[in-house]
Amino acid sequence: MTHTLPEGFDHCDPLQQALYTTLFTRRDVRSQFLPDAIPDEVLARLLTAAHYAPSVGFMQPWNFILVRDPATRQSLHSAFMDAHLEAATMFPDEQRDKYQRLKLAGILDAPLSLCITCDRERAGKVVLGRTHMPEMDLYSTVCAVQNLWLAARAEGIGMGWESLFDPEQLRKLLHMPANAKPIAILCLGHVNAFYPKPMLELEGWASRQPLADMLYEDSWQNSIASITKD
Amino acid sequence: MTHTLPEGFDHCDPLQQALYTTLFTRRDVRSQFLPDAIPDEVLARLLTAAHYAPSVGFMQPWNFILVRDPATRQSLHSAFMDAHLEAATMFPDEQRDKYQRLKLAGILDAPLSLCITCDRERAGKVVLGRTHMPEMDLYSTVCAVQNLWLAARAEGIGMGWESLFDPEQLRKLLHMPANAKPIAILCLGHVNAFYPKPMLELEGWASRQPLADMLYEDSWQNSIASITKD
Repeated sequence: MTHTLPEGFDHCDPLQQALYTTLFTRRDVRSQFLPDAIPDEVLARLLTAAHYAPSVGFMQPWNFILVRDPATRQSLHSAFMDAHLEAATMFPDEQRDKYQRLKLAGILDAPLSLCITCDRERAGKVVLGRTHMPEMDLYSTVCAVQNLWLAARAEGIGMGWESLFDPEQLRKLLHMPANAKPIAILCLGHVNAFYPKPMLELEGWASRQPLADMLYEDSWQNSIASITKD
Repeated sequence: MTHTLPEGFDHCDPLQQALYTTLFTRRDVRSQFLPDAIPDEVLARLLTAAHYAPSVGFMQPWNFILVRDPATRQSLHSAFMDAHLEAATMFPDEQRDKYQRLKLAGILDAPLSLCITCDRERAGKVVLGRTHMPEMDLYSTVCAVQNLWLAARAEGIGMGWESLFDPEQLRKLLHMPANAKPIAILCLGHVNAFYPKPMLELEGWASRQPLADMLYEDSWQNSIASITKD
């Protein structure tokens, strides 16, 4: 994993540089997948990384459904394509052509699909830290997704988060109970390359915004830009 | 950051070990804070780490409100305590005493509070990848929180995610517009120690569940435990 860290990161110690390099080179991968299976010991590390995510009230609300069966993966792909075609109709004319040319489907390209779910009832009715923000269990599960994503990158494994699905269709396909909410469908596999920048940036769909424009101090009324220089 | 990685991680290369060590030693910190201010260059790295999180449709929906003003931090603390007292009444009797003895408030202990928000309208009405799961922008913002958390750990800075707030009270306190949803209030600062395990585990509030019980293959009907051994 070679990557030149930007100014401000070049004097960090090697452990910090390792983390930052992983953060900055992580990509949402939809192509470049190789067919080789992910070894069980690597997969175990990725799942363990996810399982050590923070969770509200130490609720650990996640489950992991590994999808390897070809017929099930074909059904997932079909569900993805249904949603993708529907989505295309929602864009204004000038964006639709570009949208349709983007490579978004990754399920059939990658050797493994993984669904990460949130069990909304795992810890009973009252959960510490979730009393005023009931969605905190969903957020905990997203932290597990991000942990897994970073571990995958460090292992040289590409991951894509396929968020185009209709969640109800996913629930039926994978026979999930009503208390389990699908949070993410991921495609995972070794890759022949990681893009140097996000694919949507390279394709001109959107560009990275200046961090300085996103900073406030003490109030949304008080914009600041002093502590960052990008 | 010394930490013995578990079996299965001990043969990873040094970059991978650095990431896994950061993941496994990250804690939700509410005490142990030192009063020293976080240097600007460190804070800039943490915010940059957050800003390089994945986001649906490359939407980058986050904003960051640094809260340093003592009066505003006192108001945040009061809002936290209001919600904390309300929360205590929700627990059954046998849990309430224990709940009230836990150290959950961290705002006044840490030198910096940070609110991370999600602008639900940042990229217009139709956002690539968010057409069937409108909450994907919230999930993107959570990825930014987790990136910042890991960067903080690597920098030796403790972070707590204070999720007890009433979000509407937060919005008013920090003068947030209607399109911005508060996702996380964080307390941040150098610490004199990181706990060896999550505080709620050490206090006997909850224990870590076996990952093997959380795994399925191809369907929720098909539980598996073969690829992990914990």
